[in-house]
Amino acid sequence: MPQPPVAIVFDTFGTVVDWRSSLIADLSAYGAKRGITADWQALVDAWRAAYQPSMQRVRSGERGWTLLDDLHRASLDRLVKEQGIQGLTEEDKAHINLGWHRLKPWPDSVPGLMRLKTRFIIGPLSNGNVSLLLNMAKQAGIPWDMIFGSDLFGHFKPDPETYLGVARLLNLRPDQVMMAAAHNGDLGAARKCGLQTAFFPRPTEYGPEQTKDKAAEQDWTIVAKDIQDLATQLGV
Amino acid sequence: MPQPPVAIVFDTFGTVVDWRSSLIADLSAYGAKRGITADWQALVDAWRAAYQPSMQRVRSGERGWTLLDDLHRASLDRLVKEQGIQGLTEEDKAHINLGWHRLKPWPDSVPGLMRLKTRFIIGPLSNGNVSLLLNMAKQAGIPWDMIFGSDLFGHFKPDPETYLGVARLLNLRPDQVMMAAAHNGDLGAARKCGLQTAFFPRPTEYGPEQTKDKAAEQDWTIVAKDIQDLATQLGV
Repeated sequence: MPQPPVAIVFDTFGTVVDWRSSLIADLSAYGAKRGITADWQALVDAWRAAYQPSMQRVRSGERGWTLLDDLHRASLDRLVKEQGIQGLTEEDKAHINLGWHRLKPWPDSVPGLMRLKTRFIIGPLSNGNVSLLLNMAKQAGIPWDMIFGSDLFGHFKPDPETYLGVARLLNLRPDQVMMAAAHNGDLGAARKCGLQTAFFPRPTEYGPEQTKDKAAEQDWTIVAKDIQDLATQLGV
Repeated sequence: MPQPPVAIVFDTFGTVVDWRSSLIADLSAYGAKRGITADWQALVDAWRAAYQPSMQRVRSGERGWTLLDDLHRASLDRLVKEQGIQGLTEEDKAHINLGWHRLKPWPDSVPGLMRLKTRFIIGPLSNGNVSLLLNMAKQAGIPWDMIFGSDLFGHFKPDPETYLGVARLLNLRPDQVMMAAAHNGDLGAARKCGLQTAFFPRPTEYGPEQTKDKAAEQDWTIVAKDIQDLATQLGV
């Protein structure tokens, strides 16, 4: 085990918040209130499936820098048509798109982060934009010290500008920063940039049929059960 | 009074923290411990006097973008020579330069910000860099939601890129953001960018002989006694 990190940054969608259950519940309640019929679970799963391809167009340079809020909205507009969802006004679609700002943390997230905050700098390092991550933190009580939205870097993970950008803004060496995520791929990219790494699984992030990221696939600096266990392993 | 803001950003040096008393106490204690003789008050006052001229060289384009930490260090090196302070090692100078990361809040700052945080997004909008402001917040218990360091914008106040950059990152209109400062000039620049403004005086920021910024010089959106009073006037 190397020297403990000074800062720990967290992947957010799936790692800190349960996007799938949150969005399905949020949109189902909103649809019921507005009298709009849809298979909200199918919409949510298709929406998330559009996430990586939409960012890939930015990463590859096919599309200029675009906020995740705007990528989400473009995907939503397409899926509403494809799934034949009727009766949504502009106001409805704007509200639904902000569902990503209203995601709920996993039960261990806020208590674990409160413990970690007493000894480490903590922040999200997410493909979400600052306003999304900040609104989420305010609504859910997530006690970040600083918000590392992708718009600070003009890059989405796993581009190295994101991981190295955190170290630069904190005036730390990369090995003084730990990336924490429930996704092996994110940690692999962080490790290539010299960051320490912490993995814990979120085996139902994608629902009961999830097959990937159920366990650590490399010898990450720390492998934990969840954020509370990460805090315990780091001695806080 | 317009609609209340969604976010309130605070000037930091002088407005939230008492840089002069903090630095004089910090450096005097350090000098005593290290057996180094100096007129620490004179060093602190000269150091702060170098602040605006050093940033002006960046604002004017004479010097490329430079972190405030690095401007502070260049000024310190010059002043140590000018004031004939003997015996400082490289480690001493690095420690002294980080004195700006260890500044202490005015007594009303943390309790007032805790109240404001319950209803508003709060952050520093300072010429300090992110790492300076974040280290200060961690040491002093300042409960910021987000750190708007000047390095996020590559500009120092009063350049409009700073005030408008906050609105952009928060996805807010400028009039949904309030700039709070003990400095009329800062608020004048923020108002020109369309932000709401809040003034409260810090009449001893520069010591007992201070003559400027003792009172509001325009009809700012709010004029308060301090941050606690600002919270009261905003109904929290």
